[in-house]
This record gives sequence, C-alpha cells and structure tokens, in this order.
Amino acid sequence: MTSTAPARLSLNTATTKNWTLREAVDGAARAGLHAVGLWRDRVAEVGTGSAAAIVRDAGLRVSSLCRGGFLTAADRTSTAMALDDNRAAIDEAAELDAPVLVMVVGGLPPGDRDLAAARERVGERIAELVPYARQRSVQLALEPLHPMYCADRAVISTLKQALDLAADHPAADVGVVVDSFHTWWDPELPAQIQRAGAEGRIASYQVCDWTLPIAPDALLSRGMMGDGFIDFAALTRWVDAAGYRGDIEVEIFSADIWARDGDTVLDLMIERYRELVEPFLAG
Amino acid sequence: MTSTAPARLSLNTATTKNWTLREAVDGAARAGLHAVGLWRDRVAEVGTGSAAAIVRDAGLRVSSLCRGGFLTAADRTSTAMALDDNRAAIDEAAELDAPVLVMVVGGLPPGDRDLAAARERVGERIAELVPYARQRSVQLALEPLHPMYCADRAVISTLKQALDLAADHPAADVGVVVDSFHTWWDPELPAQIQRAGAEGRIASYQVCDWTLPIAPDALLSRGMMGDGFIDFAALTRWVDAAGYRGDIEVEIFSADIWARDGDTVLDLMIERYRELVEPFLAG
Repeated sequence: MTSTAPARLSLNTATTKNWTLREAVDGAARAGLHAVGLWRDRVAEVGTGSAAAIVRDAGLRVSSLCRGGFLTAADRTSTAMALDDNRAAIDEAAELDAPVLVMVVGGLPPGDRDLAAARERVGERIAELVPYARQRSVQLALEPLHPMYCADRAVISTLKQALDLAADHPAADVGVVVDSFHTWWDPELPAQIQRAGAEGRIASYQVCDWTLPIAPDALLSRGMMGDGFIDFAALTRWVDAAGYRGDIEVEIFSADIWARDGDTVLDLMIERYRELVEPFLAG
Repeated sequence: MTSTAPARLSLNTATTKNWTLREAVDGAARAGLHAVGLWRDRVAEVGTGSAAAIVRDAGLRVSSLCRGGFLTAADRTSTAMALDDNRAAIDEAAELDAPVLVMVVGGLPPGDRDLAAARERVGERIAELVPYARQRSVQLALEPLHPMYCADRAVISTLKQALDLAADHPAADVGVVVDSFHTWWDPELPAQIQRAGAEGRIASYQVCDWTLPIAPDALLSRGMMGDGFIDFAALTRWVDAAGYRGDIEVEIFSADIWARDGDTVLDLMIERYRELVEPFLAG
C-alpha cells in the first residue's frame, strides 16, 4: 500500500462494477486511497457487518452509501415498501459508519404524468424518514439527477430544487449531493452551490465527466474526468469556496470504464483527480 | 382539403422529414391545417421565393422558421460566418413572412469547457443581430434546449435563462420558445411561463412528448403527444394562462415517426392535439 493517494479522493464502487466489495476495498487500499463509496447491492452480497469489517480492516472509511430513495410511488403498498427499504438503508449506513445516505428519489410512477405531485410526495416521505435517520446519525443527501432522468429515476432535477426540499429540515439531517455529471449544465449552479455551502448542506461532492454521444443505456453515459465537457476547475473552486471539506467521490457508470482492468482505472482516476480537481481545493 | 383541422395547430416540417417542402405543404393542406413551421434546409432546396409562393398558394401561413443560432464560436472567423448565416436566416424569415426565427444557440466550441463564457457570447451576438432582425420585422425566439444538449447544441438550458438573455431587448425583437420536450422537467417552468407571458415574450409553443429510452441518436428522442411522460394539459393551461394565442407547432424528430406514412402521421397528430392540447386552450 502506497500512502501517496490524495487524502479526500474516494472510490465509489460503481466505478469498478466488476469488482466485489472486497476486491474494490483491496484495490482502493492498493492505490493508497482512504475512502470508498459503497453501493447497497455489493454490501448485500457479503452482509452489512462483514462489509463494515472489510472496510475497517483495510484501514479505509466509507464516504457514502448509495442509495436510498425511489419514494415517488402513489399507492399505499408501494410507499410502505419504499419507506421500509429506506429505513433498512439507513440502518446499513449506520452500521457501515457511512455519514451519508445518497437519495435518488425516483421518477414518475408508471402511467402517471403529474410531476408536481410526485415531487410533493418526495418531500412528504423525506420528512417521514428524517427522525429515523437522525436517531442513527445518518444524513440523507438529496441528489439532483440530470433532467434526462426526470421521468424514470429522479424527479429532483436541480440543486435549487434539492435545497428547497431540504430546507424543511436541519442541515445535519438533510443535505444535498453536488454531482458534476448531473449539474454541470445548470446556469444557477454557482449561486446554488454557494447557497448550499451557506446552509451547510453539501453532503457529498461526486465527480465524473459528461461525454458524448449519450450511451445507448443512458445510465452508463459517464466518463472519466477530462474526457468530456465539464470544467472541473471552476466547479471544484465553487464547491471549495462553499466550504466543503469532505470526501470527493469518483462515480462512473460506463461500459467502457467497466471493461478495463480495475487497477488501471484507479491509476487513471488518481492521475486525473490530481490534475483536474485537487489543484483547485484550497481547503 | 377539409376545414376541420384545429385553427392553431401547425405542422413543423421536421415531423415529416421525408417530405419535400411542397409535399409537406400539400400534406398540411390536405389535412386542413392552416400553418407550417419550416426548416431552412427544405426551404433552400426550392429557394426562398418559391417556398414562400408554395405556402401562400396553398392558403397556408408560416408559423416559424427553424433555425438561426449556433452563435457560440470563440474565434473571429467562425463568429463572422455565424452572424452572416443568421442574417441570411433573418432575410429568409422575412421573405417567408414568418413572424419568428427560432434560435438554437449552439453548444461549447470544440475543446472549450468555459460554459459561462459561451453563454455570454450568445448574449453579445444576439445583441448584434437584433437591429437587423427588427428592420425586417422578424422576432428572434431563443429556444432553451433540454440540458442533455448543452454540450453540443444549445448552452441555453432553461426558460429562465432564455428570458434573462432576452431581457436586454424589447419583446417584439427577442422572444422565447416554450417547447414541451425541452422544458417539461423544469421545476421553475410554471413560474417562468407566467413571467414569459407577462413580458409578452412567448414567441412559439411547440409540442411533442418525452419518451424513453433515449434514442441512440439523442436528437431523435422525441415522441408523439400522449406516447410519453409529459402532462400536456398542465403545460397547455400554463401557456394559455400566460396569454399566448399564437400557433402551436408539432415538431417531432423521431426515426419511428419518420418511417411512417406522412398523411397517417398528420392524422394522428391532429387526433392527439384535439385530445391532449386543444381542450386546455381557453383563448
């Protein structure tokens, strides 16, 4: 294990999809990283207790757990199931000592076109989950997703909207995710990042690039920092100036990245982070 | 020619891509429509004077000309060429008696990641074009495109941003397009449509649906009203309440729609318009 990797860089395990949890943790440790962002499916494969031990024994910490959410169902049964699943996710985050549960709030229910109502339901259900999360010291982090996922993944489409939803709750309970891929296009982004910082709500900063063409599976349409259109210097300066001092996760869903050797991906990720992100962190 | 087609419905010729201008005009007339939205490539095939005569002789009017724009180049030569091309488009709009030139403002120049600067250049170049357009009684209509086209097609991503840009100019000179596909996801949409109406800037209302999956060519990712996720009743009510009384264009880029017989597409378009749009127009 080297000790040279950047202190705040975290490997989100979605970036190395073909690695098991243990392989991802071992790979991160080999690369000298200090943190990993975990996805629940990989945690479930080994069990939450074992996952926590694997991370701890490697000397790493968990920067976030992905993901809770999918809270937009209109019917009672689906809603109850979704809330149960979110409570389970909160329990897992607590057991993993993950400070943050990333919330991808869900799209429109099948056949439903009432976007405003779906957005209202998200607010109501976040409010239901907050006391449970607070008891376990887990911050719910609302993630605005790119508007191209509004129909099927997340009806929260902008940072402003996430902050407006979060405003009903203390910042320690409900924060927001700033993800470069999802937010880079937003003309309100500098102002809303500043606001998020002033409110103490930046719970996670995630980086990957916007590349073209959009992938055949739109969910996999992400690229390594530097391979696309995003100005990471500007974005990182804004997030830094807003006072964020936490982990910076690299989360890349990409068939191309997944086809490569994991260690090679981590080397490239560290190189690009050093070049495009780290120099713009004053904090 | 029937006389039963809805008075404000206009066929944008992009919807019937395989038809020549004359075929599209004839098809629109056969269907009883009163207006067509034209694309410059189809106009160029016959020449502007002939295109104007074809439309006039069929008893139709031109609802808009698509498109000017692509104004984001950073270098002097490309900028001069773009401005020339836009002046030509303004001339064509005037000759076609099109009240509106739709502006798709362009994405980031190759290798350029400074989105804020590209957006500023758009503002400067719109300002350069305004006197020329005013002389010819052509309103420039800034079209916010869906954020998934921000990198390569249009750095104007929201209606608010289009209105902020337009604010430097009288409404008669610079308006905005409200296109369902591009804007339906926007949490600020109702408020910004209301604002656009109050400022007298709604220059065009275009309708087509957001369908999934996103098409392999993302530009072709549109569907017929009713086939996707958009609540046309709500959107149409907002646009109507904002005082818009102009033409309503159906503009669908879609390999699936293009593969069908044009007359059949027009019949379906009229049927869906009657069901999903027209009942929500009070004006």
